[in-house]
Amino acid sequence: MTTQTIGIILNGVTGRMGYRQHLVRSILAIRDEGGLRLPDGSRAQLRPVLVGRSKDRLEQIAHRHGIAEYTTDLDAALADDGLHVYADFLLTSARVPALRRAIAAGKALYSEKPTAETHAEAADLAREVERAGLHNGVVHDKIYLPGLRKLKRLLDSGFFGRVLSVRGEFGYWVFEGDWQPAQRPSWNYRREDGGGIVVDMFPHWSYVLEHLFGPVRTVYAHTATHIPKRVDEQGRTYAATADDAAYAIFEVGRDVVVQMNSSWCVRVDRDELVEFQVDGTRGSAVVGLFNGRVQSREVTPRPVWNPDLADAHDYRADWAAVPDNGEFANGFRAQWEEYLRDFAAGRPHRFDFASAARGVLLAERALESAAAGRRVGLGEGPEAGR
Amino acid sequence: MTTQTIGIILNGVTGRMGYRQHLVRSILAIRDEGGLRLPDGSRAQLRPVLVGRSKDRLEQIAHRHGIAEYTTDLDAALADDGLHVYADFLLTSARVPALRRAIAAGKALYSEKPTAETHAEAADLAREVERAGLHNGVVHDKIYLPGLRKLKRLLDSGFFGRVLSVRGEFGYWVFEGDWQPAQRPSWNYRREDGGGIVVDMFPHWSYVLEHLFGPVRTVYAHTATHIPKRVDEQGRTYAATADDAAYAIFEVGRDVVVQMNSSWCVRVDRDELVEFQVDGTRGSAVVGLFNGRVQSREVTPRPVWNPDLADAHDYRADWAAVPDNGEFANGFRAQWEEYLRDFAAGRPHRFDFASAARGVLLAERALESAAAGRRVGLGEGPEAGR
Amino acid sequence: MTTQTIGIILNGVTGRMGYRQHLVRSILAIRDEGGLRLPDGSRAQLRPVLVGRSKDRLEQIAHRHGIAEYTTDLDAALADDGLHVYADFLLTSARVPALRRAIAAGKALYSEKPTAETHAEAADLAREVERAGLHNGVVHDKIYLPGLRKLKRLLDSGFFGRVLSVRGEFGYWVFEGDWQPAQRPSWNYRREDGGGIVVDMFPHWSYVLEHLFGPVRTVYAHTATHIPKRVDEQGRTYAATADDAAYAIFEVGRDVVVQMNSSWCVRVDRDELVEFQVDGTRGSAVVGLFNGRVQSREVTPRPVWNPDLADAHDYRADWAAVPDNGEFANGFRAQWEEYLRDFAAGRPHRFDFASAARGVLLAERALESAAAGRRVGLGEGPEAGR
Amino acid sequence: MTTQTIGIILNGVTGRMGYRQHLVRSILAIRDEGGLRLPDGSRAQLRPVLVGRSKDRLEQIAHRHGIAEYTTDLDAALADDGLHVYADFLLTSARVPALRRAIAAGKALYSEKPTAETHAEAADLAREVERAGLHNGVVHDKIYLPGLRKLKRLLDSGFFGRVLSVRGEFGYWVFEGDWQPAQRPSWNYRREDGGGIVVDMFPHWSYVLEHLFGPVRTVYAHTATHIPKRVDEQGRTYAATADDAAYAIFEVGRDVVVQMNSSWCVRVDRDELVEFQVDGTRGSAVVGLFNGRVQSREVTPRPVWNPDLADAHDYRADWAAVPDNGEFANGFRAQWEEYLRDFAAGRPHRFDFASAARGVLLAERALESAAAGRRVGLGEGPEAGR
Repeated sequence: MTTQTIGIILNGVTGRMGYRQHLVRSILAIRDEGGLRLPDGSRAQLRPVLVGRSKDRLEQIAHRHGIAEYTTDLDAALADDGLHVYADFLLTSARVPALRRAIAAGKALYSEKPTAETHAEAADLAREVERAGLHNGVVHDKIYLPGLRKLKRLLDSGFFGRVLSVRGEFGYWVFEGDWQPAQRPSWNYRREDGGGIVVDMFPHWSYVLEHLFGPVRTVYAHTATHIPKRVDEQGRTYAATADDAAYAIFEVGRDVVVQMNSSWCVRVDRDELVEFQVDGTRGSAVVGLFNGRVQSREVTPRPVWNPDLADAHDYRADWAAVPDNGEFANGFRAQWEEYLRDFAAGRPHRFDFASAARGVLLAERALESAAAGRRVGLGEGPEAGR
Repeated sequence: MTTQTIGIILNGVTGRMGYRQHLVRSILAIRDEGGLRLPDGSRAQLRPVLVGRSKDRLEQIAHRHGIAEYTTDLDAALADDGLHVYADFLLTSARVPALRRAIAAGKALYSEKPTAETHAEAADLAREVERAGLHNGVVHDKIYLPGLRKLKRLLDSGFFGRVLSVRGEFGYWVFEGDWQPAQRPSWNYRREDGGGIVVDMFPHWSYVLEHLFGPVRTVYAHTATHIPKRVDEQGRTYAATADDAAYAIFEVGRDVVVQMNSSWCVRVDRDELVEFQVDGTRGSAVVGLFNGRVQSREVTPRPVWNPDLADAHDYRADWAAVPDNGEFANGFRAQWEEYLRDFAAGRPHRFDFASAARGVLLAERALESAAAGRRVGLGEGPEAGR
Repeated sequence: MTTQTIGIILNGVTGRMGYRQHLVRSILAIRDEGGLRLPDGSRAQLRPVLVGRSKDRLEQIAHRHGIAEYTTDLDAALADDGLHVYADFLLTSARVPALRRAIAAGKALYSEKPTAETHAEAADLAREVERAGLHNGVVHDKIYLPGLRKLKRLLDSGFFGRVLSVRGEFGYWVFEGDWQPAQRPSWNYRREDGGGIVVDMFPHWSYVLEHLFGPVRTVYAHTATHIPKRVDEQGRTYAATADDAAYAIFEVGRDVVVQMNSSWCVRVDRDELVEFQVDGTRGSAVVGLFNGRVQSREVTPRPVWNPDLADAHDYRADWAAVPDNGEFANGFRAQWEEYLRDFAAGRPHRFDFASAARGVLLAERALESAAAGRRVGLGEGPEAGR
Repeated sequence: MTTQTIGIILNGVTGRMGYRQHLVRSILAIRDEGGLRLPDGSRAQLRPVLVGRSKDRLEQIAHRHGIAEYTTDLDAALADDGLHVYADFLLTSARVPALRRAIAAGKALYSEKPTAETHAEAADLAREVERAGLHNGVVHDKIYLPGLRKLKRLLDSGFFGRVLSVRGEFGYWVFEGDWQPAQRPSWNYRREDGGGIVVDMFPHWSYVLEHLFGPVRTVYAHTATHIPKRVDEQGRTYAATADDAAYAIFEVGRDVVVQMNSSWCVRVDRDELVEFQVDGTRGSAVVGLFNGRVQSREVTPRPVWNPDLADAHDYRADWAAVPDNGEFANGFRAQWEEYLRDFAAGRPHRFDFASAARGVLLAERALESAAAGRRVGLGEGPEAGR
């Protein structure tokens, strides 16, 4: 790869995530530092081209940030041989056709997830990309955050011995919208509009667990719609038809049991909105997205279960904070840099379209499990899901 | 009821629980205060009679505490009309025949639980007692502890609004026995010897949940034997064949979802060895066996899920401690007093032999669920358990 | 060994240590519990016989504690075949001849240390005992204390990875005797009376280091007499001729560097009067005789040395307390029980007369090093000490 | 001295230390306040002239800070009679020739240390400067930091009575570079590249101890390479050939014993990365570079060494913090001001080139001691070093 400039089509930068995280804090931040630093010490400069439907809004953004190129004509951009990467931050419903055009044009692909609304379609896309031999990646931002990077560091160091189990708690109280306005859009609570906490969060649990502990093999999920009536952005009461909590048990990797609660109807008695407790033979950790604490077996207390006596031991004091020991760059930018270095080196990016498809699969199988009241497998191939 | 003295046969006081909790801290404590205080202000004195197999040990205990009567002849004691209550603290395996002799003698019954080793037998016993019209009770000590009494108080006050869900975490690290000695007997880890955390703890969860939230209707349980080899009291390595962790989801009462983890392979990041978080529409609580804290909806924060920014909010500070507002007497004694007052008043005790049978049923159905990988019902009557 | 009773001659129980630690808290405590529990569940009762020079004082003690036998005639006691063990708590100067009589009588031996005042004599004793095939042990009480037992547990668990270094600080301020009375006897500060901190403490460091990290191979010691004039028990000023501080560096076991300060002229900025910091590749610990704390590499901070900026990091908060996780019995009694069980089983006790001789050797070589200003070896055999 | 302006040649301000500490925070800070305040109330303004090899970088710095003069021609600057002081912040290897040119030009000298790479060369330079009668000083920044200034204040006040001993602990854990990146450059760990903790730190201990307690008279050092393999900036494993820890005992001043550990392989159980405990007959102190605490003999506890009983005394609570009682200016600037006032007054600066040479000597003698296993002297004159 001798290209000194990498041309990147950015489709969907008028949305909040595309604009702020991908354009401003990642692509432009790299550009303004003189380009992407490569292992040989050289730099590859970036050439961003904005694509969207509103010429006015593109012009505004381009002007504000000194971006030379923007267009409403995706096909024209895809026809430009100096543009190597197609990056997609559209709404999920608009994504598949746009990705297919980029595949046809032979571009490298980088996409927000889910790549498609159903596992069937997401898996199709993954296969097409694979067959076409295109460099491809999906945004897995959480594992680039400090907390999960520290957890990975602990796993890599052998701290846990053999990992036995993981307890995950995600959630907070989303107001019903009557007494205080809701802090999430109402479509999240309507199944007919694509809402539901399983669809929203399980694709995240998929790549997080896979990255840390190995592939998810089975799922049991119990879903609930705890709050059946909510009030929308216009003050109208509506029926909440989607799941607002999911209580799940996953079997992951080599015999790791993951018990994971996700809920918009829980009050937070934790340090962060999501926390994972990992227990292993030689040590345990509790980590959120930013901080974590550990207890090794050497400081593990030896309580005796004697319920008729109050226990004065301070169990929380048995844990020690995991230090940062370094600066953690913005997660989105960190993944962009890794993706682009992989592209420049001609090697696959570790988080590919197939991993995005597995995330959608996990959500689908979880809902299937909740409906049937039984554990469901995620095996691939003809036996898939049993 | 004009009896001024209640005669009580105590069978099994040479064991730790029978001696310390039932005899010394309950029966003798009441006796030494001048007897049980009744609603009309009068007192009923207690007349304890010890029964056991070793005359020497009974004599020692009787002598130490100034107890006039003891015998190795259970039938003789049961034949004495001045003895109204038969209380049983034997090992489970010896309990059923002894209870049957007391039923035949028409005594009121008070028993440690489980009343029998199988649900079938426990249910039989409950039916026999019912048919015979005998006053009966089983020891449900946990719900007489301060934490669960405060939780009941919160429920009774309407604090929660509608209860949506309960998260329970029970457990601690039981050492494997190699590097540090184990703090539980080795038979607990051998299924063939009656071990396993489901058998040990689910009967407790049964009466606790039933008392607080209503009957347990279904169970899904995922069990694991996380530590497959342990070292016993003689330093010998043995195969752990029983479950040492159980991850369960119960449906309880009117649409309450209970997610409950029980484990001997977890390090404690809580204030107490067992804690329950209860979330309701108007407030939430986290309680252990001794203390608790609450968050009402008026002080509930309104977090926004924005994972790329560290969140400085101190979520733990949003909770306020529940005050004792009174002395909580020893739980075993409190239940004894309630049981005896019920007896004196001729009204049923709220924790009867049928509730003990339901506890054994829950453990059996949980193991059935774990084996089958599906949710199992606990319905009573002909359709029981589906 | 079929003896049901172990007869023990106790010589020197009128001194503080012999009376309190060995007789009352060890031998009599075992006797009063029904004897020493053996691995097969049986018990061996103890038959103590007191020996001393003052019949009156022996009689007093025997009377106070219900001891049947005492005598001022050591030879008579040694001639009694029902007395198996000779235990010696005399002043060091009186010990060698008494031990030699017990060796001649073929008794098992248990002795306070040092066993003799010079290494030559202590090594001779060790060889005589060895040649005679007598069961023998010396009191190494410190390693039976909770702190060092926890440290041993950490070492056995592999917590440290490879141990790199040990920093030891022992000491406190012993008042000069003018302004406040001294809390140690004046002979401790006179070399001509056998005083000096090297002679007093280095035999302890010898067995502690050997037990934990391996044999001491070399020593460099810098001694000082920081306070040259002190005031004795009679209020007379005297010249302090012995070392009151020693700054030492040992090479121990496999490449462990031990830097150890001992001083009666230091004010205590520690949790305990003696503390050891152990640093290893995977973790570090700081332990005293009772408590300890650890820091594993996972929570090790990553400070940057930047002296012109004050550093806000709370380094002390990076350490976690090591829990007791069990009851630690009195150290003297614990060693007595181990010694007697070894005797009953006919196997050697791990702390023998040879280890006591090595302790005296370390003190002698340290003083030699201090005089010569160079590192000195402790090798055994003809090359000893180089 | 009537000069109203002091001209200063600054050689090496493109390096981090020269730029930030000497130019910006010292010289420019004084200039921007209107010049150096002199004892008579008048001010001497400073005229800085930057010297370096890169015209561009000098221009940039000069422009940014409004500095009128810069040049790549050192000799031209030295020829300017309006420039009185030559200040050197070059790499050590480039320093000697530059200093010699300044000596030849008869300038006053101010230099970072070490002034040369060997004691022989550093001592030659000191003699040349002395013979030429030039005003000269070296940067001894640590003793201008708050902690050591407070310690000097304690010494000057007579707080300690007679100082007996000093314990110094310096160090922290430098990561090996495999699991977490190292926080120091790899050359520090290669002797062939000038690495090693003795060479790095002992010149600091030399001037600190000399300033506080008197000249260092002898040294015993035990060095170790605890971590024999590390990973460098490029991820390559390399052999660590330099000492990464040194355990030293110095004899200093009038009978003060200094025991000083320096290590990059120790976890920090202190308040600061370096701390010194000073014990004297009337009081003790523990100070770091910023804070300190004291214990006078009046509050000294009187512990009795009784190892079989846990000691509940809180020894750390016996110490009282030393207050700042004033603002401590930046250390580099404080020394610059003192140096320039000395220059203006025509009196010698207390930290001269000879003291820098003694620092290099201490490092050399320490390594000699470590190799030989014996104490080595630092005497000056013909008997130097024995």
